[in-house]
Amino acid sequence: MDFIKKPQDIEKRSFEIITEELGKTYDDRFVDAIIKRVIHTTADFEYAEIIEIHPDVVKNIINAIKSGCKIYGDTQMVMSGINKRRLAKYGVEVCNFVHDEDVVKEAKELGVTRSMVSIKKACKDENVKIFAIGNAPTAIFALKKLIDEGYAKPNAIIGVPVGFVGAAESKELVKELGVPYIITRGRKGGSPVAATIINAILYQMDE
Amino acid sequence: MDFIKKPQDIEKRSFEIITEELGKTYDDRFVDAIIKRVIHTTADFEYAEIIEIHPDVVKNIINAIKSGCKIYGDTQMVMSGINKRRLAKYGVEVCNFVHDEDVVKEAKELGVTRSMVSIKKACKDENVKIFAIGNAPTAIFALKKLIDEGYAKPNAIIGVPVGFVGAAESKELVKELGVPYIITRGRKGGSPVAATIINAILYQMDE
Repeated sequence: MDFIKKPQDIEKRSFEIITEELGKTYDDRFVDAIIKRVIHTTADFEYAEIIEIHPDVVKNIINAIKSGCKIYGDTQMVMSGINKRRLAKYGVEVCNFVHDEDVVKEAKELGVTRSMVSIKKACKDENVKIFAIGNAPTAIFALKKLIDEGYAKPNAIIGVPVGFVGAAESKELVKELGVPYIITRGRKGGSPVAATIINAILYQMDE
Repeated sequence: MDFIKKPQDIEKRSFEIITEELGKTYDDRFVDAIIKRVIHTTADFEYAEIIEIHPDVVKNIINAIKSGCKIYGDTQMVMSGINKRRLAKYGVEVCNFVHDEDVVKEAKELGVTRSMVSIKKACKDENVKIFAIGNAPTAIFALKKLIDEGYAKPNAIIGVPVGFVGAAESKELVKELGVPYIITRGRKGGSPVAATIINAILYQMDE
């Protein structure tokens, strides 16, 4: 059977196809990398239209990573998707508490999502400077409340929940928090998109 | 702030919206669940057009799960996404070897993807009856070779790699292996799609 076997060749050719079909290269190499890597992950060119990248967000994420921050990921899938070997070079960890016993218990008692309670727990750690929310709109609603009340001051929010109830609204909300952001307008997004955005920035940092 | 906080309400309303916009309910409740849950995961209605479900695949997956089989997932993301608490009820485990030392070493020596070597390792375990491939076309090419040579006899293949190089071709190949399958035609798919398909079946089993 004749097929490309080397991972680096497959990736290189994929990005050539994406650039060709998209018909453009963005001036900022980080923006270019973020948009094309999300298309690479989803095979969905609509992302080029719906990703919004705040002008300060890449700088803030790079600085936070270089300072050895923690990144909050709202699902196991976000955590699995982020390249932790690359992060380890900077002493950066990805954290999440949705499976913690106290979080599960509190969520059940209050009848709210575990992600809401988990994000509250994350805000207690000042070193959590980046929030990568790929799944739960409620995590963003909770984050807004914590920011409004002065409990959270993240350097950057990657807000890309996917879904039909609250997802689109939650992402519009991210833009009003006074924190540099990357979002995907509308329903689309997801944990792999959130992880991919972090990875795109990480790989460019190493170039 | 006024938003739906209860996870079960969010999910219920999401599926109502999906059914409404899709404009249909499929006769087979497993097919209905698979297609709608994939749309739920991706917010992408195109999946209703590109998912192909072999007539025997749901039965085979249910029987394999009830027999306490192992499920091979080709990425950490597939493994994270599958509801392992539900699987545990049947004594089912999800396995994957891409991070195993021997696999990393062999892949590097041969200049091939780790997923190819990992799947070869999975085929040595007869209890691995379901393959859920969400990322790597090369995993499917490797699986084909192992099936052709008589080393693998899976009960079902979920073949939904995403991507621009080899993904579409790999999924057409799945249909020719003589094994009941679920695929997504073309470029789209991914690890969350693979995990979602397993979950959709699991949740229907419990209904």
